Amino acid sequence: MLTMQDALRILSDYWTQRGCLTVQPFNTEVGAGTMNPATVLRVLGPEPWDVAYVEPSVRPDDSRYGENPNRLQTHTQFQVILKPEPGDPQELYLGSLEALGIDLAAHDVRFVEDNWAQPAIGAWGLGWEVWLDGMEITQFTYFQQVGGQNLDPIPVELTYGVERILMAVQGVTHFKEIAYARTPAGEVITYGEAFGQSEYEMSRYYLDDASVETNRALYDSYVAEATRMVEARLPVPAHSYILKSSHAFNVLDARGAISTTERARAFATMRRLMRDTAALWIERRAELGHPLMRPLEAAADALPTVDESTLPAEPQTLAFEIGVEELPPHVVPATIEQVRAALTERLAATRLEHGVIRVDGTPRRIVAVIESVAAREPDTEQVRKGPKWQAAYDDAGRPTKALEGFARGQKVSLDQVQRLEVQGAEHACVVVEQPGRSVMEVLSPLLAEVVTGLRAEKNMRWSDPSLSFSRAIRWLVALWGETVVPVQVSEVVAGRETYLQRTTGGAERQERRDGVLLGHVDVPSSDELLPTIARGAIVLDTQARRAAVVEQAEALATRAGGRVDVAAEASLVDQITNLVEEPHGVLGDFDERYLDLPAQILTTVMRKHQRYLPVLDASGDLLPHFVTMANGLCDDATVKAGNESVIRARYEDALFFWNADLQTDSVESFVPGLDQLTFEDRLGSVGQRARRIADVAGALADQVRLSAADRETLTRAGALAKYDLATQMVTEMTSLAGFVAREYAVRTGEPQAVADALYEMEQPKTSADALPASVPGALLALGDRFDLLMAMFAIGAKPTGSSDPFGLRRAALGVVRILRDQGSVGQALAALSIRSGLEAAAVRLRSQGVEVADASVDAALEFTVGRYAQLLRDEGTSVHLIDAVLPGAATPGEATTALAQAEALRGDEGFRSIVASLQRIGRIVPEGTAAAYDASRLTEPAEVELREALDGLPEGSSADLETFAAQGKALVDPVARFFDDILVMAEDPEVRAARLGLLASVRAAAPRQVDWAALSTALA
Amino acid sequence: MLTMQDALRILSDYWTQRGCLTVQPFNTEVGAGTMNPATVLRVLGPEPWDVAYVEPSVRPDDSRYGENPNRLQTHTQFQVILKPEPGDPQELYLGSLEALGIDLAAHDVRFVEDNWAQPAIGAWGLGWEVWLDGMEITQFTYFQQVGGQNLDPIPVELTYGVERILMAVQGVTHFKEIAYARTPAGEVITYGEAFGQSEYEMSRYYLDDASVETNRALYDSYVAEATRMVEARLPVPAHSYILKSSHAFNVLDARGAISTTERARAFATMRRLMRDTAALWIERRAELGHPLMRPLEAAADALPTVDESTLPAEPQTLAFEIGVEELPPHVVPATIEQVRAALTERLAATRLEHGVIRVDGTPRRIVAVIESVAAREPDTEQVRKGPKWQAAYDDAGRPTKALEGFARGQKVSLDQVQRLEVQGAEHACVVVEQPGRSVMEVLSPLLAEVVTGLRAEKNMRWSDPSLSFSRAIRWLVALWGETVVPVQVSEVVAGRETYLQRTTGGAERQERRDGVLLGHVDVPSSDELLPTIARGAIVLDTQARRAAVVEQAEALATRAGGRVDVAAEASLVDQITNLVEEPHGVLGDFDERYLDLPAQILTTVMRKHQRYLPVLDASGDLLPHFVTMANGLCDDATVKAGNESVIRARYEDALFFWNADLQTDSVESFVPGLDQLTFEDRLGSVGQRARRIADVAGALADQVRLSAADRETLTRAGALAKYDLATQMVTEMTSLAGFVAREYAVRTGEPQAVADALYEMEQPKTSADALPASVPGALLALGDRFDLLMAMFAIGAKPTGSSDPFGLRRAALGVVRILRDQGSVGQALAALSIRSGLEAAAVRLRSQGVEVADASVDAALEFTVGRYAQLLRDEGTSVHLIDAVLPGAATPGEATTALAQAEALRGDEGFRSIVASLQRIGRIVPEGTAAAYDASRLTEPAEVELREALDGLPEGSSADLETFAAQGKALVDPVARFFDDILVMAEDPEVRAARLGLLASVRAAAPRQVDWAALSTALA
Repeated sequence: MLTMQDALRILSDYWTQRGCLTVQPFNTEVGAGTMNPATVLRVLGPEPWDVAYVEPSVRPDDSRYGENPNRLQTHTQFQVILKPEPGDPQELYLGSLEALGIDLAAHDVRFVEDNWAQPAIGAWGLGWEVWLDGMEITQFTYFQQVGGQNLDPIPVELTYGVERILMAVQGVTHFKEIAYARTPAGEVITYGEAFGQSEYEMSRYYLDDASVETNRALYDSYVAEATRMVEARLPVPAHSYILKSSHAFNVLDARGAISTTERARAFATMRRLMRDTAALWIERRAELGHPLMRPLEAAADALPTVDESTLPAEPQTLAFEIGVEELPPHVVPATIEQVRAALTERLAATRLEHGVIRVDGTPRRIVAVIESVAAREPDTEQVRKGPKWQAAYDDAGRPTKALEGFARGQKVSLDQVQRLEVQGAEHACVVVEQPGRSVMEVLSPLLAEVVTGLRAEKNMRWSDPSLSFSRAIRWLVALWGETVVPVQVSEVVAGRETYLQRTTGGAERQERRDGVLLGHVDVPSSDELLPTIARGAIVLDTQARRAAVVEQAEALATRAGGRVDVAAEASLVDQITNLVEEPHGVLGDFDERYLDLPAQILTTVMRKHQRYLPVLDASGDLLPHFVTMANGLCDDATVKAGNESVIRARYEDALFFWNADLQTDSVESFVPGLDQLTFEDRLGSVGQRARRIADVAGALADQVRLSAADRETLTRAGALAKYDLATQMVTEMTSLAGFVAREYAVRTGEPQAVADALYEMEQPKTSADALPASVPGALLALGDRFDLLMAMFAIGAKPTGSSDPFGLRRAALGVVRILRDQGSVGQALAALSIRSGLEAAAVRLRSQGVEVADASVDAALEFTVGRYAQLLRDEGTSVHLIDAVLPGAATPGEATTALAQAEALRGDEGFRSIVASLQRIGRIVPEGTAAAYDASRLTEPAEVELREALDGLPEGSSADLETFAAQGKALVDPVARFFDDILVMAEDPEVRAARLGLLASVRAAAPRQVDWAALSTALA
Repeated sequence: MLTMQDALRILSDYWTQRGCLTVQPFNTEVGAGTMNPATVLRVLGPEPWDVAYVEPSVRPDDSRYGENPNRLQTHTQFQVILKPEPGDPQELYLGSLEALGIDLAAHDVRFVEDNWAQPAIGAWGLGWEVWLDGMEITQFTYFQQVGGQNLDPIPVELTYGVERILMAVQGVTHFKEIAYARTPAGEVITYGEAFGQSEYEMSRYYLDDASVETNRALYDSYVAEATRMVEARLPVPAHSYILKSSHAFNVLDARGAISTTERARAFATMRRLMRDTAALWIERRAELGHPLMRPLEAAADALPTVDESTLPAEPQTLAFEIGVEELPPHVVPATIEQVRAALTERLAATRLEHGVIRVDGTPRRIVAVIESVAAREPDTEQVRKGPKWQAAYDDAGRPTKALEGFARGQKVSLDQVQRLEVQGAEHACVVVEQPGRSVMEVLSPLLAEVVTGLRAEKNMRWSDPSLSFSRAIRWLVALWGETVVPVQVSEVVAGRETYLQRTTGGAERQERRDGVLLGHVDVPSSDELLPTIARGAIVLDTQARRAAVVEQAEALATRAGGRVDVAAEASLVDQITNLVEEPHGVLGDFDERYLDLPAQILTTVMRKHQRYLPVLDASGDLLPHFVTMANGLCDDATVKAGNESVIRARYEDALFFWNADLQTDSVESFVPGLDQLTFEDRLGSVGQRARRIADVAGALADQVRLSAADRETLTRAGALAKYDLATQMVTEMTSLAGFVAREYAVRTGEPQAVADALYEMEQPKTSADALPASVPGALLALGDRFDLLMAMFAIGAKPTGSSDPFGLRRAALGVVRILRDQGSVGQALAALSIRSGLEAAAVRLRSQGVEVADASVDAALEFTVGRYAQLLRDEGTSVHLIDAVLPGAATPGEATTALAQAEALRGDEGFRSIVASLQRIGRIVPEGTAAAYDASRLTEPAEVELREALDGLPEGSSADLETFAAQGKALVDPVARFFDDILVMAEDPEVRAARLGLLASVRAAAPRQVDWAALSTALA
């Protein structure tokens, strides 16, 4: 059996044999191998740096006295930095797993999107977590920034979680059972035997016994020293003290001694120190002349030359494959569309004839096949227009200066100038032959541009600063018929070699025992690309791949006596489809005793953490099985066992949290913990926010009628608002917020109504989610969202472009959905306006010292209404109707009513007529004209008739559109006559004023909040 | 080429393959691998623990900005702990060197005594520094105590100095040039390229930029936290904070910010915390049930059984070899003597006949050969005496109870009781046959007892707690003729297998290319032991070995055109003789430019650090060569090159110190540095001591006549006293103290007299050393020694047994030698008494707050006079003469004179007679009797005669013995007559009083300071 010690040695040997330097773990506590100067400093600047080392990583917060099976205050990372990234880091990495004895043909190894960011040190990168049979064993990141500095060259970081790998390889379920080493007599020494005491005692220190006062003093000393060292231009000791300060902070944090203000200040300090240190390091290395600089080898393949004369004249299929490292699932379809669009547009801009363009893809390749691409563009002529023929020769028949200038400009002799009619006039012209370009001339730059033009929502750089995409582009196949199209993008040169699923022995072509091709395979001609990919068992067609996922999942579930709710899991199925190239379902089981936990917890773990499909029985209850979709053929038993051990560990964790959390007598005991959680630096703790939410909800409650029972529920639920954010369960699985609040509340004796309200206050979580089912729940949900919106607008953190980190769009939509709801809850809250909610939130924020400008309230309102309008548009309501109704509606409920009535009245001729009249009035009568007139000036019959009709309207006719449509009908004819007979703008100013006043009175009799012009357009 | 990275990997692999666990370097700064909990805690308690790890060891004091070729603030240790020690740790260790590619047949690897102690953590052990061609590459220690706890089992610690090994292996002269690793392209990355910046910046931090205030605060915080953790019974975090406090202390120390008081307090704190933590660790491990405990395998060989019937009847040679790991040189002759004495005495206590006992030895074996050891003891009879015959039978002839009891006790029947005469009386006796034991029966326990009885000055335990010796005993050969004598000592069983020089491939028998046997070799019979050892080229005979050393050294020196001053180097030659088994001289050279340094510096390095013999030219000047004595055949060129690189590095260091020190304008600039050096916790800094010395010398100067020039010299030299202890040169090579003071003083413009006085004040360093040649030098030397003696007696630190850590015996002897000197300096100081010197020292100590009891002054005086007496005895002066003169002499000068005069008067009959009379007077006249009498009562002629003779003595006759002997002659006859004629003890009390008074007056006329009784005995 491979011991942990063996594993560390093997990894170290593997990487040093590949040219990595070895350094020692840092001699002060670090939270991760990344923080060792061998990473965090060395990735800066231009010097190459390949390094591999072990790093015992200390996370006081993860202290569990050695009891939790997976969580340690000190866990062992194996860290590798390859700078610059070597072009094949994934293959190198997989080689290291093989070196560990992990049979890649048996296991399911996947690269699952993971975007790494550590704002506290101004660092981020893109990459993956690497899964071994569902267990995350390595973090794999292309660093983009560290210490706020853009990195060039780009390094790759690999961080192996050594205990996890060993638990998987050895098949043990608790870290203490890991075989760590062997005695001289060959007996196993376990991790627990060797390090159990230390794990326990350091946990004791971090959780219970560390002196808060002392560690505070240490923190201050470290920060002071780091600051001084930055000033002394000594980045190495500065960095060391940053680490020490960070550890002291973590100790204080684990002791629960960090206030919100302290946290905010500490993070700002750390960011500043790290940024300064990074900048200083770069400077100092330059001063030292970059001692580690070595000449870089030029590595790019030569671009093939094409002998055009040997090319066929007939159209050929173009096959174009863009090979990438695993794209995030949601990037796959977007990239397919991008490539399709780019090819279509760019080809359209040429004269090259071609047939159908088909594009599809997997996480590792986007493939375009274009039928019948011509060998050349057709030749054409271009007429270039010169001076008018009259002006080309003078009276003596000599060419004028204008003509001579034209000819010179065109580089032709005068005899090549022709007399041609252009747009009805005769001009001196030159006709230029435009020979069509060959297919190679056209495609060579075009395909390169398609590739360099690729962009995703989040992009990264890798080898070449000229490229930027979601993940690294590693190979290109570009074949026109049998000919390789010369395409070069950065260092990647297109060829005829595709790269099927990865082989176990590196990158060479192999055959799997089922005859499937693996590795690098030459494609003889463009028509062979798709068949070749198919022979690699790769399902390129997204729909086919999705169907395979569904089919296999269903079959496996059936075998287990259950089913998969494919419809409910649509989004998960989509994800899975784009996580694999060759879907291979494996059924796994878990212990029935975990079914004691609420199903939502179990399925959340499956879906969010593991991308497993839950298996249900006929009545929809969870069965103790799951389906995972491996990538490609593997040893089912191995993969099943691996995944089962992962889910067991996760469920064990969940059970641990569940039981630990439910030790309490009352969930109220969690509330103080909220004050330890930062919400946002400037907005205080989650505890403060929870109290604001309760207050806002209370204020809104005052505006509506509330039963005594609801009031009581609201008060209690308000006092407990968000409490579950302080539970271990929600700390681990944030998506369970609300759900856990309800479950725990019920189990600790809170009234069901309170428990429900706590659940409902998180609703709706998504646009598809249900709305709160009770008034107290809805009020808290509103309080939550109003506080969020108002707070963020107050501090200027409104969403921009695609960035909406606090989910304000979702919050605004939630507000609208709740308030316009037609059910009993919505009706109970109909009186509530968006503005009043925001203003209530503003009051609470101000009372907590947050500055809230009046303009911020307006902005938040505008934003929320804007989301409402968007919602309506998305639902198919016309823009004009929205414009007519929304801006004037006092409450979403009112707007909803108005919209419905307007729709209903769309066919009502009288209503349309009156709307038209009102629009006409709007055009004539200036804004602000008083709805009053001197009746003595209105003596014409049409004037009198209108005046009487107006006077005859019953009270309340302007209440809403429906009422007005019914009662205002009396005005239709009189208004029409008035406009027919009367000149409003009479010369006599008094008469004119009276007529305008009359019309203003008509307008005043109509519902005020409607934009009649817009409504008129909408009805047109 | 082996890179440093390769070396670390190879060492790690080597030891883990032998069952060592690997741990990571500790995640806080440690000064040595020993301080990692994997050593300092794990060696405690009964659990086995084999571990190997890298430890970057941080020593702020060694910061040199990366400039010094050998000194780094962070150097890399490779640390191995084998617990329990495995029985063959040296062989395992040598295997690791071979794994590194070091050819043990080519290199000279030696184990040179090094006793390790770290009082700050209550730890010590015995062992070696391992030399590779003269370079110390590893510390090898059998730990005895840690944290004040006795260890059981005993662990072995190996600490490799990795940079040093690599410099040796790669042949580079600066650590920055070490090839550390290779890039992926195979290019070398040097140590300097990889870590130079860090070395520079951390040096800057430790030496220049660390905030003293902050580090002081850190120190206090760490100590507080460690203390709290001890109280919380958490040894792991406690230990971590001890390390942190230690590092903070080291930083402060490097910044020169530690006062004497602080140092003393810090060390006490550390000792206490470490002791408490160690005790706590042991307790906690017991509470945890010793998780790492494994059943130990019994490994001892079976004791051979001897079939006595097959043994020859004739006497045979006994050959007995005690095989040990390298003994310290001075232990070898002592052990030879010990074995000789033990065998002689123990055999004498048996009846076994034997011939000559010959014992000799080397550092690795003590061999005894005893000729003609009989096969058996002769048979004898023993008479056991019972009751007197008269009491054996009653009148009726029946046996008495007494007889019956005797017979019962002897387990015989009454008819076996005989009537025998014992000591002139008849007794009932039993005659018991005592058959002689066989040689095996005699030798088996006897030889075992010889071994278990071995002791050295410093002893250690290793595998078995029943054994304790200077170093581990590893094998025994015990042959009587061809038969193995069954001897077992602990786990070592005697056999016929000797162990010659170590083989390169482990322990198997091999032959060297020159035919010399190596490794384990069977010895057929006792007569073959010495020839076998000789065939191993081992020179067992110490004298022969010494002769070989001398002969080779002289031959090599001659080859270099010089000579070795064998007489002057006698002690070094003795040492070398006992450092090797097969002397093999190698001549080395060094660069002539180092000859610019004073020869004493160069030779000090050679002798003290390297055990090289200096090579001189005809006029005694140093030549740029040296002779080193390797152990056994090696590749001369390799060993020469290795040793040359070591001496180059050391001379480079010395040159660096020399030049750095002489940057100063005046050596006065070093004086403040003395205040940073602790002398002794309770006695303040060296600076304080230096000022006391100058003061005491000044006070003594007041008691003698001093020329103005000498006074001026004394004042200046006093102000500079001991300054060189603050120089880098003396910090590195303490034995150069005084010498360096003079050299630097001259070179920075001090008067020659001042320079000389500074040199002389350290004289005499040894009993053979010269005395100060000038009065100021002598006064300072006295001041130095009086201060030392008085100070140590004041704090109760007087020497005990063999322990004299502060060299008080040497100091006392120095005082005496200076004061009794008959040269001009001694005469100038003749007025000085030991008491006055001690009292002057007491005054200065008291003024610095040290409590000095009057009894301490007396004790110091007694001690010093005692040393004086010892000196005199050693010089052959009779004990009685010493007793007669020394206690009464006011000054050593006076004593010397008295002794000389007494010697001279030894043949003087008159003097002897008067001495006899004075002794007689002393017996009769009580102490304190006044020297006065009523002359009117003394009327007898003898009385009158004596009175008149007394009155006739000239003034000053009691000045000294010589004068008194001459002038006191007049008393001889009258005294004799007086005693003949007069009854002193007359009945008339007044007469009696007068007679006693007269005799007392005679006594008073003699020199007062002499003990006449003792003198009388001496002259007898």
